[in-house]
Amino acid sequence: MKVHLSLIGMGAGHPDHITLQGVAALRRAQLVLVPRKGADKADLADLRLSLCRELLPPGAAVLAPFDMPVRQGGETDYLGAVDRWHDAIAQVWLDTIARHLPEGGAVALLVWGDPSLYDSTLRIAQRLASRVDLSVTVVPGITALQALTAAHAIPLNEINAPVLITTGRQLRADGWPASAETVAVLLDGQGSFQHLDPVGLHIWWGAFLGMPHQLCISGPLAEVSATIVREREQARARHGWLMDTYLLRRARNTVEHHAD
Amino acid sequence: MKVHLSLIGMGAGHPDHITLQGVAALRRAQLVLVPRKGADKADLADLRLSLCRELLPPGAAVLAPFDMPVRQGGETDYLGAVDRWHDAIAQVWLDTIARHLPEGGAVALLVWGDPSLYDSTLRIAQRLASRVDLSVTVVPGITALQALTAAHAIPLNEINAPVLITTGRQLRADGWPASAETVAVLLDGQGSFQHLDPVGLHIWWGAFLGMPHQLCISGPLAEVSATIVREREQARARHGWLMDTYLLRRARNTVEHHAD
Ligand SMILES: C[S@@+](CC[C@H](N)C(=O)[O-])C[C@H]1O[C@@H](n2cnc3c(N)ncnc32)[C@H](O)[C@@H]1O
Ligand SMILES: C[S@@+](CC[C@H](N)C(=O)[O-])C[C@H]1O[C@@H](n2cnc3c(N)ncnc32)[C@H](O)[C@@H]1O
Repeated sequence: MKVHLSLIGMGAGHPDHITLQGVAALRRAQLVLVPRKGADKADLADLRLSLCRELLPPGAAVLAPFDMPVRQGGETDYLGAVDRWHDAIAQVWLDTIARHLPEGGAVALLVWGDPSLYDSTLRIAQRLASRVDLSVTVVPGITALQALTAAHAIPLNEINAPVLITTGRQLRADGWPASAETVAVLLDGQGSFQHLDPVGLHIWWGAFLGMPHQLCISGPLAEVSATIVREREQARARHGWLMDTYLLRRARNTVEHHAD
Repeated sequence: MKVHLSLIGMGAGHPDHITLQGVAALRRAQLVLVPRKGADKADLADLRLSLCRELLPPGAAVLAPFDMPVRQGGETDYLGAVDRWHDAIAQVWLDTIARHLPEGGAVALLVWGDPSLYDSTLRIAQRLASRVDLSVTVVPGITALQALTAAHAIPLNEINAPVLITTGRQLRADGWPASAETVAVLLDGQGSFQHLDPVGLHIWWGAFLGMPHQLCISGPLAEVSATIVREREQARARHGWLMDTYLLRRARNTVEHHAD
């Protein structure tokens, strides 16, 4: 069985984030895998399905929804649990492909945002390579970070300066990093900016970016932190789930700035 | 004069990197500003013009090519020189808009990659705000980094781990950063990876990403560094210019890895 797998970045929430390249790749697929992740994230599976309905001519490809395996354990061995989980997902992909395309063919998967950023799809795809004759193509997509900077109309970096992309967990563990005055945070379930000394920090925060219920707040962290925490809680209660990301910037020392 | 300015991320080299949102924003414009940057970067101005020709219905918008002012000085005062240069560009935008849309209206500008990443367009747009009644919309686009990870079919980050985005100049000045095991480098005119101790580093390099003459090389830095340097020189000689970017990753200590 020879499988060509296209991992297509679908963007981070707006149906029109998808690129012309993504549309073309989707239209070349014979089979589209559609992961279902459980009721609380229903909006996400819906966006995938509605993109397919919108962009695929009727009858062009088979849509194959499948239930995502649930991650087991991980309290003591986080990476081991992730490893077993990825194996289980690879197996479901294989079963679904074998059922619909027993002779192999062109398979597509819409990946949230860009497939390169805090996403395991590429790692899961690697596991297929040992079991079928596989080729993988990646089509880049708009990330949540780009949706964030676009919504606030701000640059990611200061002029020629570095930016650290990190997770809420890392930020809590490491504190403010040594290498950058700008930090972009994803995968933060608990508003980890609250653990930082807010003096001199500015935040640009966004939730549900690109979606009709997008929220944006920015300002000095000391002033807006509590508002963001409250908005997060209210929005999570309203929608049953929440996805947010933010950029933190430390005011540069002006003297240092001009010596740069 | 009331101006609505759309800064549209056009992607990093492939004409189909543009998003459906970008296409729609372009089609709403009455005037499209097309910067011309001099003969050595002719391919870039050409990509802008051919995107407009491809995506705009005939007569839909006025295309206004303009010559980019040249940056003066900067040997002693880099940021001061950038500041004066941005002022000069803002003035050319204003003159071009006033000539074609004396009553104001919807103006679009295609920005290379994403407008947030190592790009001054947003900073220049800010300067207009003091001179006209301005609203700015940003439409995100595929960055060179996403084109790089897509071309190599690799994740940007290790699982849940941070990534530092930086420039060649910063990498030379700061050396390997303390905060991340993955470093993405843009704006590097001179292959600054040569200044690092290559032991334990892996590189994924790409030039002219998304374009017909795309080049990709990856491997242990110690083994492929010289090849990349040679390829860069040959490609620059062949095309008269070069745009490249790369990802460096340090092998994690396995013990640390599992304790993570
Ligand atoms: C598993 S990561 C996937 C990121 C995705 N691959 C990308 O390129 O944006 C999920 C995290 O991305 C961020 N995120 C994704 N979509 C978002 C959105 N529409 N609004 C706010 N944050 C978002 C959140 O930080 C979330 O925890
Ligand atoms: C001024 S920055 C602009 C980046 C752009 N805004 C983006 O989002 O990709 C230009 C740098 O981006 C990188 N770059 C842009 N396009 C590229 C391409 N097609 N191939 C390789 N590198 C590229 C190079 O490092 C180059 O020096």
